[in-house]
Amino acid sequence: MNPTQQSLVDEVRSRIGERAVIADPAEIEPWLTDWRGRWHGRASAILQPSSTPQVAMVIALARQLGVPLVPQGGNTSMVGGATPPDDGSALILSLRRMNRVRAIDRAAMRTDVEAGVILHNLHEAVAAEGLRFPLTLGAKGSATIGGLVSTNAGGTQVLRFGPMRALVEGVEAVLPDGTVHDGLCGLKKDNRGYSIDQLLIGAEGTLGVITAARLKLVPAIHSRAVAWLGLSSTQAALETLYALQAQTDRVEGFEVLPDESLHAVLGHVSGTRSPLPGRHAWHALVEVVAENAEQESPTDLLARLLEALVAKGIVTDAVISSSEAQAEAFWRIRDSLSEAERATFGPATQHDISVPISDMPRFMSDAAEAIEAAFPGTHVSGFGHLGDGNIHFHVRAGERRSEDWLAREGPVVTEMVHDLVTAAGGSISAEHGIGVMKREELERLCPDRVRALRAIKAALDPTGLFNPGKLV
Amino acid sequence: MNPTQQSLVDEVRSRIGERAVIADPAEIEPWLTDWRGRWHGRASAILQPSSTPQVAMVIALARQLGVPLVPQGGNTSMVGGATPPDDGSALILSLRRMNRVRAIDRAAMRTDVEAGVILHNLHEAVAAEGLRFPLTLGAKGSATIGGLVSTNAGGTQVLRFGPMRALVEGVEAVLPDGTVHDGLCGLKKDNRGYSIDQLLIGAEGTLGVITAARLKLVPAIHSRAVAWLGLSSTQAALETLYALQAQTDRVEGFEVLPDESLHAVLGHVSGTRSPLPGRHAWHALVEVVAENAEQESPTDLLARLLEALVAKGIVTDAVISSSEAQAEAFWRIRDSLSEAERATFGPATQHDISVPISDMPRFMSDAAEAIEAAFPGTHVSGFGHLGDGNIHFHVRAGERRSEDWLAREGPVVTEMVHDLVTAAGGSISAEHGIGVMKREELERLCPDRVRALRAIKAALDPTGLFNPGKLV
Repeated sequence: MNPTQQSLVDEVRSRIGERAVIADPAEIEPWLTDWRGRWHGRASAILQPSSTPQVAMVIALARQLGVPLVPQGGNTSMVGGATPPDDGSALILSLRRMNRVRAIDRAAMRTDVEAGVILHNLHEAVAAEGLRFPLTLGAKGSATIGGLVSTNAGGTQVLRFGPMRALVEGVEAVLPDGTVHDGLCGLKKDNRGYSIDQLLIGAEGTLGVITAARLKLVPAIHSRAVAWLGLSSTQAALETLYALQAQTDRVEGFEVLPDESLHAVLGHVSGTRSPLPGRHAWHALVEVVAENAEQESPTDLLARLLEALVAKGIVTDAVISSSEAQAEAFWRIRDSLSEAERATFGPATQHDISVPISDMPRFMSDAAEAIEAAFPGTHVSGFGHLGDGNIHFHVRAGERRSEDWLAREGPVVTEMVHDLVTAAGGSISAEHGIGVMKREELERLCPDRVRALRAIKAALDPTGLFNPGKLV
Repeated sequence: MNPTQQSLVDEVRSRIGERAVIADPAEIEPWLTDWRGRWHGRASAILQPSSTPQVAMVIALARQLGVPLVPQGGNTSMVGGATPPDDGSALILSLRRMNRVRAIDRAAMRTDVEAGVILHNLHEAVAAEGLRFPLTLGAKGSATIGGLVSTNAGGTQVLRFGPMRALVEGVEAVLPDGTVHDGLCGLKKDNRGYSIDQLLIGAEGTLGVITAARLKLVPAIHSRAVAWLGLSSTQAALETLYALQAQTDRVEGFEVLPDESLHAVLGHVSGTRSPLPGRHAWHALVEVVAENAEQESPTDLLARLLEALVAKGIVTDAVISSSEAQAEAFWRIRDSLSEAERATFGPATQHDISVPISDMPRFMSDAAEAIEAAFPGTHVSGFGHLGDGNIHFHVRAGERRSEDWLAREGPVVTEMVHDLVTAAGGSISAEHGIGVMKREELERLCPDRVRALRAIKAALDPTGLFNPGKLV
């Protein structure tokens, strides 16, 4: 620890108390590496205030002393967004002790939640009040609200209620100048210039440290049904989704996967079995819910709508879950995909991309063809949130597989995927953000945009106090 | 016209054509004054490109020559947001020729609209497709989409679908560096850093010139019913609103007014009559809609819910419109309020303020008491969008009335109102924005916020090219 960092740590200890500092290297260690083990940083202390005034105090001190801070929640970033720089110049500012659900307002259907609350815990807290926070994702047992807001998180249930941005009514944050921005004041209408709330959502902790958020809640689920569909193509899948959405607003999930991915799961994950007999080029998982007993049951609704789509030849075959256990079994196949793909097919470059929804089927086939032609022997696999125009686009090494394929050829493959996405008017980061991983690619492909982002960053955080090296 | 402005005008004429410039003072005149006649500016030309590339070209030229531009749509700002500076240093950039509804996507329920499209025309265009754009306001016959997005406009129908920000899916704009930001690309998920779209919404044309927007549409109204309620207090009005919202999500309007305001309308506007017999301290207008014939009819729904509220003593008396003509008659009372108040009670300082919704009843009575005590003889009147926590808070001169009351005492009264609002955690601009009118007050009351806004402005528009003198 350099003397300046030591001064900061001493000040924080004396003003807030022993518990506000972790300096034991063994305790710090797990927080220096991102959760996929790709980025390793150094930080000689973790500061962990437990209230907004304490966060403001830590930030004011860090600012005076010129010590950069890396805000961290559950450390579940997929792009190295919460890993400290490897030169040890920054300390980690953990929000994990700010873990209170401050209030749940049943009438207004919203909750005020501190940044360190783990998503799964929020789900349980609002469920106890008969309500639901709809956003969910694989890392829900670790990911915290502050990080989810800071990255405008997505997940498997974005279709109906949108990503985090659509669920945030206000943000409380400490800005680089040490002031507290209070966006939880409950104003439905406020036109006092640029929205600081909106600027902080998705800013990856580079403009302010989010300490709490006011989040929308929705009615609890009364019942749900999950259908598994066999389809001839992604175009058929998209037509199916549009047809369902035209008839009901209760479609909460729509995920697609190719046949070989299904079979990778069946081969790799014990206890799984194919939901449908026979083979289909593509599969889709559809979830429909009801909020009360007066609504047509999800099972009846799905049966009615899917019957018509099978009759029209848009859906080849379909089965609807007959129990909650079967619904879970269908979702388990989807949730095991990444792991099964990796185990079955070996290394692959992975891309979290989006294009306009209606263009996705054509993009998937055209881009796959182009990549496989440019890198003979590779194989492209796309799966995921078709209904959001967001596919996880994997390029497997295939016949080119070697010990160092990912390191050697991965970056070139990724560049080409990103070029194709950009040419299609898409985004090289649909839900994971930019972090460390995509910073150079963003600058290469969107230089105008990066210039604007950098100008904003320099304006609000001129000394680079927050999350150095990320995003901009 | 100074030589630099003349060069810009000549260049625009030669590159885009004669129609792109208005230089006749008589034609310019109406656009130099805001629509309430409070601010007068000077500008020796109006530039009016008709496409996004033309806007980009005009802005690139203006930037090279250092001529500031005042973006203007329908010029309906309530705060002088579109009036040029009075030193003649800027030219007006009118977006009115960009008046195409580019596309209406019925399946996706959205539309791409150019900045110069007048709100009323958009309503008609989407109605022809069986859809509806829900935002509406008094100036709908003049206000344009670019201005409505740039000011995050509100209005009388915000309750259900939110203000403009909630209805914008993407923004196309020319930034000060001359680049075109294309937020209409149709990406549902895009996490490439700070949201430029969100930064431009409500920025009052100071960060970019909006050329088009992608807007959400909702189903057309199949039927509606409007009820007029007599109430004992604003607290009773709020309880009524909460009770209705707990039972249905189809409440689209909820406006309150005091008895004397109703009687001002009845006395001033011919053909109006009191919807209810007897006197009530407060009145509320409630609109409920249905999107299809399968839903319980709005009349039945309102009758059922209001009957219960009358039985509980929350609502004193109520009448439901028995025809569309009667529904219109109820709304006409509401829409005539400002005019009738002015004609009946003379000058008043007017404040477009918001506080947390649940605090509004107490704020209205406490603030009225404080103002009337500080300025004996004045009388406070509040009316409007209670359901949004947004009231138009008028302080009438009353016994202090004199020729120059507004000019003499108005600013002091306004300061006190704004102090009370700020102390209550509210906003001094709920829906009208800051413009010229509230700039000094915003700086007085929210200096931290103004510092952040100025930093962003300086970062993105360092030479002050766009809308000089507004907001920051």
